[in-house]
Amino acid sequence: MWPRNELTERLGLEWPIIQAPMAGSATPELAAAVSNAGGLGSLGFGVSTVEEIGAMIEAFGELSGRALNTNFMCHKDPGDVEGRFPEMRAGLQRLYFEAGLGEVPQPTAPYAPFGPQHVELIQHYRPEVVSFHFGLPDDELLQAVKDTGAFVMSSATTVAEARWLEERGVDAIIAQGTEAGGHRGTFLGTDPTEQPGLFALLPQVVDAVSVPVIAAGGIADGRGIAAAFVLGASAVQMGTAFLRCPEASIHPHHREALARGTDSSTRLTRLFSGGPARSQINRYMNALHHLEDKAPPYPTQSSLHWPLAAATPDEEAGDVIALWSGQSAALTREMPAAELVATLAREAGEILGGIRD
Amino acid sequence: MWPRNELTERLGLEWPIIQAPMAGSATPELAAAVSNAGGLGSLGFGVSTVEEIGAMIEAFGELSGRALNTNFMCHKDPGDVEGRFPEMRAGLQRLYFEAGLGEVPQPTAPYAPFGPQHVELIQHYRPEVVSFHFGLPDDELLQAVKDTGAFVMSSATTVAEARWLEERGVDAIIAQGTEAGGHRGTFLGTDPTEQPGLFALLPQVVDAVSVPVIAAGGIADGRGIAAAFVLGASAVQMGTAFLRCPEASIHPHHREALARGTDSSTRLTRLFSGGPARSQINRYMNALHHLEDKAPPYPTQSSLHWPLAAATPDEEAGDVIALWSGQSAALTREMPAAELVATLAREAGEILGGIRD
Repeated sequence: MWPRNELTERLGLEWPIIQAPMAGSATPELAAAVSNAGGLGSLGFGVSTVEEIGAMIEAFGELSGRALNTNFMCHKDPGDVEGRFPEMRAGLQRLYFEAGLGEVPQPTAPYAPFGPQHVELIQHYRPEVVSFHFGLPDDELLQAVKDTGAFVMSSATTVAEARWLEERGVDAIIAQGTEAGGHRGTFLGTDPTEQPGLFALLPQVVDAVSVPVIAAGGIADGRGIAAAFVLGASAVQMGTAFLRCPEASIHPHHREALARGTDSSTRLTRLFSGGPARSQINRYMNALHHLEDKAPPYPTQSSLHWPLAAATPDEEAGDVIALWSGQSAALTREMPAAELVATLAREAGEILGGIRD
Repeated sequence: MWPRNELTERLGLEWPIIQAPMAGSATPELAAAVSNAGGLGSLGFGVSTVEEIGAMIEAFGELSGRALNTNFMCHKDPGDVEGRFPEMRAGLQRLYFEAGLGEVPQPTAPYAPFGPQHVELIQHYRPEVVSFHFGLPDDELLQAVKDTGAFVMSSATTVAEARWLEERGVDAIIAQGTEAGGHRGTFLGTDPTEQPGLFALLPQVVDAVSVPVIAAGGIADGRGIAAAFVLGASAVQMGTAFLRCPEASIHPHHREALARGTDSSTRLTRLFSGGPARSQINRYMNALHHLEDKAPPYPTQSSLHWPLAAATPDEEAGDVIALWSGQSAALTREMPAAELVATLAREAGEILGGIRD
């Protein structure tokens, strides 16, 4: 049957289905619809100011009284980036000129990693779940988060990362297979091409740690949910499937790219942010493919990509913007989030119904 | 419950568990033990002469009266390779000198793809299953194989490859996720880094074709078998798990590498044969990692690698030979093949026992 565990019990979830945080796309409306339907809604703050984060949490609170997962980035600050990365800037110059822009600007690091200002927010709003991407904050900050009573989670792309997270006291670990869309949560330096697919990663993480493991990557329908539970998951986290909900904030071209996506139409790329992330392949990615290993570290590359995206006519946006997607876009369906949660629960339930306890 | 389908019925399998062909490592003893235990044993002929193939099939016949899967390579003949690939030869030169060898030899293509001589063998021995890697032979050769009554299978690494195989009349398709060890079966030119993990590939192939789908890649215990069935597989094919059986012919260093393998200790490489294949990472792979895209096409690179492997002292062999492995080596166990089949069937059965029909 459905897994019941510390995660579902403590958070009062009807279904162990987590909507991935998806910074920039997950809206309070999406997260509230998922939580109200019995899953766990999430908001990702990787591209938000402290003021914006507060407004989003408040908006969620007006729409739902259920648990919320708030997600923060723990990337390493890239330091002083001005004057660096000449190859990438040179490679981008042609695209800038084509877009009617001038010289490629000096790079900047547009977002600060998780810091004391975020702890204050958490202390103020006390979200039920605080999750991190790219590892964890320093011990002191982490302890301050835990002291609020938050359920703490982070992503692991390898068994070694899962062990590292458990040692530092997380309450649950998201095992992120290579199939996943958006940013790899990787933080211990393993080359992304050497990270395992979910079929290999999930049972090995389950064997390695004692906290609940949440499966992520390539799960888009009831079959995937049931299979993840068979492999030992306590819950699933799904991103691409929820991107197609009307409550998600994504460009129409992104929506179209997901609708026509196939199993082999995505690629891991550093060309949008500097961190390896999976997107449907577009013209921008192909044009700069030879410069993948010249991209400045996350989030610096964003500062070089954004002006180009902003200068691109809206009817050509899909050629330039990030089209985040996992490898199972073809299994996703366009429907309201509440209906999607109910559909996924029904589909998985039909398969799991008879599995021995 | 366990899937029953055309594949299990026609081949008289007790368990829909296929031991992967693994050319060079799968012995008649291994294949016979698997078939006698109720699974499907396989022999891979990618590195064998016609005479050797005949002897192996006969040896299997002396050990088992059950079905045998014979596996052949359908790679494109690389043509005249002499005098080509100077960068790879230059890169190898230092390793050759270190091993006490002279100049790196001119490349050759050491094995011919599936041809009329193999059809004659099949007509003579009439194996129950004929499977192909790297696509399919020409229509005429394929028809001649079908005319023997053989059950025909081939591997797909993408949905497009699965559709291509179904159109040409295969009886079953092996959906090979990126987790798989050894050679990718890929043949339609998709970059291996853009091929999907099994969690994404399997249900999409199941949705796309009407023939039975066999799941391969990262499956190493009963959990993986049950999860594959939940995702729609009609059978599973497992390689690395069977490599650790005493009946498999592998170097002791290869055996040790599997025993200590982790989820992130493998890499896809073209450095052994020219075709992308997954191996536990060793010194040879790291030394030439920068030349991955300079490797001559399959099987030409083998002719440049072999002299080096042959000249390496046996106590250092693990640094140089291919250590084929999927991403789930850590889930495998050293036990006789018959015991492994029984263990896998019991483990999967315990999970599947109660699944609704």
